[in-house]
Amino acid sequence: MIIVLKPHATEADAQAILARIEAKNLKPLYMPGVERIVLGAIGDERVLADLNIEADPIVEEVKPILSKHKLVSRELHPHDTQVPLGNTQIGGERFAVIAGPCSVESREQLLAVAEMVKAKGAIGLRGGAFKPRTSPYAFQGLGLEGLKLLKEANDQLGLPTVSEVISPEDVPMMAQYVDMLQIGARNMYNYRLLEAVGQSGKPVMLKRGLSATIEEFLLAAEYIVAQGNPQVVLCERGIRTFETATRNTLDLNAVALLKQKTHLPVVVDPSHGTGIRELVIPLSRAAAAVGADGIIVEAHLNPKEALSDGHQALTEDLFEQLMRELAPFVAAAGRTL
Amino acid sequence: MIIVLKPHATEADAQAILARIEAKNLKPLYMPGVERIVLGAIGDERVLADLNIEADPIVEEVKPILSKHKLVSRELHPHDTQVPLGNTQIGGERFAVIAGPCSVESREQLLAVAEMVKAKGAIGLRGGAFKPRTSPYAFQGLGLEGLKLLKEANDQLGLPTVSEVISPEDVPMMAQYVDMLQIGARNMYNYRLLEAVGQSGKPVMLKRGLSATIEEFLLAAEYIVAQGNPQVVLCERGIRTFETATRNTLDLNAVALLKQKTHLPVVVDPSHGTGIRELVIPLSRAAAAVGADGIIVEAHLNPKEALSDGHQALTEDLFEQLMRELAPFVAAAGRTL
Amino acid sequence: MIIVLKPHATEADAQAILARIEAKNLKPLYMPGVERIVLGAIGDERVLADLNIEADPIVEEVKPILSKHKLVSRELHPHDTQVPLGNTQIGGERFAVIAGPCSVESREQLLAVAEMVKAKGAIGLRGGAFKPRTSPYAFQGLGLEGLKLLKEANDQLGLPTVSEVISPEDVPMMAQYVDMLQIGARNMYNYRLLEAVGQSGKPVMLKRGLSATIEEFLLAAEYIVAQGNPQVVLCERGIRTFETATRNTLDLNAVALLKQKTHLPVVVDPSHGTGIRELVIPLSRAAAAVGADGIIVEAHLNPKEALSDGHQALTEDLFEQLMRELAPFVAAAGRTL
Amino acid sequence: MIIVLKPHATEADAQAILARIEAKNLKPLYMPGVERIVLGAIGDERVLADLNIEADPIVEEVKPILSKHKLVSRELHPHDTQVPLGNTQIGGERFAVIAGPCSVESREQLLAVAEMVKAKGAIGLRGGAFKPRTSPYAFQGLGLEGLKLLKEANDQLGLPTVSEVISPEDVPMMAQYVDMLQIGARNMYNYRLLEAVGQSGKPVMLKRGLSATIEEFLLAAEYIVAQGNPQVVLCERGIRTFETATRNTLDLNAVALLKQKTHLPVVVDPSHGTGIRELVIPLSRAAAAVGADGIIVEAHLNPKEALSDGHQALTEDLFEQLMRELAPFVAAAGRTL
Repeated sequence: MIIVLKPHATEADAQAILARIEAKNLKPLYMPGVERIVLGAIGDERVLADLNIEADPIVEEVKPILSKHKLVSRELHPHDTQVPLGNTQIGGERFAVIAGPCSVESREQLLAVAEMVKAKGAIGLRGGAFKPRTSPYAFQGLGLEGLKLLKEANDQLGLPTVSEVISPEDVPMMAQYVDMLQIGARNMYNYRLLEAVGQSGKPVMLKRGLSATIEEFLLAAEYIVAQGNPQVVLCERGIRTFETATRNTLDLNAVALLKQKTHLPVVVDPSHGTGIRELVIPLSRAAAAVGADGIIVEAHLNPKEALSDGHQALTEDLFEQLMRELAPFVAAAGRTL
Repeated sequence: MIIVLKPHATEADAQAILARIEAKNLKPLYMPGVERIVLGAIGDERVLADLNIEADPIVEEVKPILSKHKLVSRELHPHDTQVPLGNTQIGGERFAVIAGPCSVESREQLLAVAEMVKAKGAIGLRGGAFKPRTSPYAFQGLGLEGLKLLKEANDQLGLPTVSEVISPEDVPMMAQYVDMLQIGARNMYNYRLLEAVGQSGKPVMLKRGLSATIEEFLLAAEYIVAQGNPQVVLCERGIRTFETATRNTLDLNAVALLKQKTHLPVVVDPSHGTGIRELVIPLSRAAAAVGADGIIVEAHLNPKEALSDGHQALTEDLFEQLMRELAPFVAAAGRTL
Repeated sequence: MIIVLKPHATEADAQAILARIEAKNLKPLYMPGVERIVLGAIGDERVLADLNIEADPIVEEVKPILSKHKLVSRELHPHDTQVPLGNTQIGGERFAVIAGPCSVESREQLLAVAEMVKAKGAIGLRGGAFKPRTSPYAFQGLGLEGLKLLKEANDQLGLPTVSEVISPEDVPMMAQYVDMLQIGARNMYNYRLLEAVGQSGKPVMLKRGLSATIEEFLLAAEYIVAQGNPQVVLCERGIRTFETATRNTLDLNAVALLKQKTHLPVVVDPSHGTGIRELVIPLSRAAAAVGADGIIVEAHLNPKEALSDGHQALTEDLFEQLMRELAPFVAAAGRTL
Repeated sequence: MIIVLKPHATEADAQAILARIEAKNLKPLYMPGVERIVLGAIGDERVLADLNIEADPIVEEVKPILSKHKLVSRELHPHDTQVPLGNTQIGGERFAVIAGPCSVESREQLLAVAEMVKAKGAIGLRGGAFKPRTSPYAFQGLGLEGLKLLKEANDQLGLPTVSEVISPEDVPMMAQYVDMLQIGARNMYNYRLLEAVGQSGKPVMLKRGLSATIEEFLLAAEYIVAQGNPQVVLCERGIRTFETATRNTLDLNAVALLKQKTHLPVVVDPSHGTGIRELVIPLSRAAAAVGADGIIVEAHLNPKEALSDGHQALTEDLFEQLMRELAPFVAAAGRTL
């Protein structure tokens, strides 16, 4: 940790801080410069967190050297983690395609779309039963009924399921019906929920928050892993920027950087990441090329009648085109579909 | 609602959509232009939400005319709402100053700072008992013990309290100890939590999410009010932008706009909004000038030893200076402290 | 164009505006709704620009239907444009790789790196002679001397050149030495400069501004084309967002959307788009997959001694790896290197 | 300067870098930690700029301690600078109100609005003669004719003028007609233009770029001052963020921070900063309260007919209300109007 003092700081100010660092068994360093005194603390600076050195009025800035996450870091765990999804897994040689409707709307709708995506190569089924919606007047999902339909689809088709959980109290119930619990973008900072899915022992798909930095995203994963559950898949789904021509800005830089920084699998959601049906296929190709471990996309047999997000759902034709177009890029990335 | 069709749309495409609009008892409008067909739906377009017209592949863009929030809108409820905080209220002639530590850390700490801010003119006490922290390894608050201390402070000093609730299941318990439930910025999209505080009947301080638009902020308030609880105070606390010299970018445009759009009181948090102790006073002055109904600031008798956010906490001297400097600006705004 | 009036607007207010629309020979439309009066203007709304309807105090919002750019729009010019770069061109079947140092530093440096990138498959040479730098104390480029070296490199190796122009008065001079004039991100809104390169008749590479929307980017291209110069290549080079782990956020959504909206070629700059050497290769692969017409990357034989941006320059080994890794993705995209 | 090496760096790597630091006469520091080797350079690190240490592949990150700007820094020049505007100045006890139309449109328009704003207390007249417009088809200003009208207005009324310059070659000509040269937001990174106004010796109003950090803003001012022209007024005019309810997000945090970091005067443009006529007055009040040295606002006697930006221009009534409402806030700030 590097500590920059304000211009008027004295050597005595510096020594007081150095004493606190030394008391924590870190090696203190005194570096008086021409315009500023700079201090250093050598050792595992994470133990300094509770000193709150940045709160000292004489301190101008604290510059950490080490990131705060450990369990999810590739530095300490160099090998790729594979996370199970039913009988298959995410993070290995296979490029995982998970598809399905934004919301579970009815038995017919779900089974038909599940059959379609399975036939064309999807290895998992997505579908929302509890929908967090910006407006209180929008469709909020079928709830438990939706979960039962997901389970039925999996039982019939052998297509493991991913569905969003929005409250800690729902976790045990949901864990009975679905194979992977999804934390949505709006809940990435909902630490109680992160702890609850951490304790559940279920595989988790963690979506990046709308305006979460990569470091915060990793720390959210750290919350889950710190509860003893290392089965976490990270999902880049677009961030909020000034650009409004697309719903979000898909951050593929983040995918490439995450693959270097963490051993957890990373997938991409090009449906929410673009918000435009016509952009889902090119960005899916890009996701395969940048090194993602898979994609999760919205598909619907009749998007016109979708109860949510129909404008970004792929029709059967487009889903088929997606799989066909993906194939050579997945192969170029040295993987299989 | 205005609906723009894609360039290749035909009149038949248009008529199909117009028929759906008419079926909802809205007046349909057909406007064929030189490069695009544009359609209109006249009437309360909110009833069209479940048609999901934007999902139709022939639709290029849907432009809503009316905002989705109603209960919080000043258009339908022109008079200012006042929200009770213990024996006082927020939203009237008085400019409310709520102050206290980021976290409740101990009985001594809390009572001392509460006494100090009360003596200098604060009308409410803030203090976190459940702390949502970015890192799982940071101090997470005293929990129930902290709530009891807040209640004790109020009992002793007559200073009503505001404290953050982070999980729906905690709402009934917290409602027994504090006067106003705070929804933190990280939980603004946590709709289960919004519904829970809506059902509690307790006054709520709702903080704007890190990257929430003003429209989303109002819809979050609408979630609470739609549960039958109109006692909501909005709090602008800075948004996330590209600028890193300050912790967040305090959006005072939003305060002025919110005062026009909604009847709910609006307060400002210059501590989180700047993240820099030296900027809290000038931005508090600006908050009074722009028309806010009050501020909520962090204060600590010994920020060096604060367990969280000490770098933005005001010391006793600075809190006194804040109140002294605020006075003429509050008077200029036609209010009292 | 759709015009939403304020809640208190009267029919007379509406008629006054409709009369102005009619006077411009557009068809006016009156749509009184439950909460707002909405007006429409059917026809080529671009002729309404000088009415400044949004300035009328009774107008709440103006929603344009058509975008303001025409010449660059694919709607009106469906076929792909190819832009010449020396004897080759950008925008055809070939995926163009343009490479070279951030700055031209010396004859030896430039010729050596030019030879290297040519040998490995680059079809163009980039190199800055006039460098816009954030700090007035940073290296500002070799100027004319740098241009002469670029010309010498092209003469020797047959590798056409791209270099940035930063002032209208430099355009005629630069046009004598380089094959394509680059407008840097910082100058995308420098309309005098856009007009000057438009009048030069030289091929232009236009980089997207740091915080330019896709619409503004297309309008900047429109400035150039409107001067009679259709030879414009668009370059996505990352936008400024809240994320600081990467220098910029490369917006590949924008590339896919631009390929749909405009007939101009679109290339990607993964060096500036990431700012991190280790991310250049994966994002180059993604650029090929998303449908870009090429990439422009920084390469340097000895990045440690680069006078600018060395941290994102590819070494010889990495440039070779880039070309090797790109190959299957370019093939998957149905193109050749 | 602090230098963090990559995890696999050796002591030899470190010594090579330290040798380069020592060769520049700075004191090198070696700090081997548990997970990273950290190096330091004590002394005026600005001399290290041309070492480009961040380009070394073994370097993970370089953390500067000192900012790159010097001439504009309050640390080295503690006293407030006052910048002349005709016979008056910006930066002293008086809170400067500069007002006028977005564009100079005609003799009648300009003289009438100039007379009005002068009568109500403005000390300067703004008006654009050369207008940088996003669309090539929008009104681009009257050019030289507009400058002559500005001069005539000043000659008749004694109201000094501010007008935007958009190209280096126009600087000498404009310097003959106006009292202060404005650099618009779109040109803040146009370094040739900054140098040209620096060399002109004329007072300059420098507007913050749409997405410029505070540090970049100060470095742009440094460009001007480094040419020997210390007469620079900084103008905060709103930044681009995700929020679209307002045209820009006015960053008053930046104003308070700039007043601490630099000795240059800082004014606020609430017209562009909000883009909404109804928000100009509350944000002007806030500007006075936060410590700005003045405001620059758009006013027009007939905004409906304004050729640009009419929707944010104040009418005569609103300008009068602005001055009346500003008065007590300016007084509360210890200044005069």
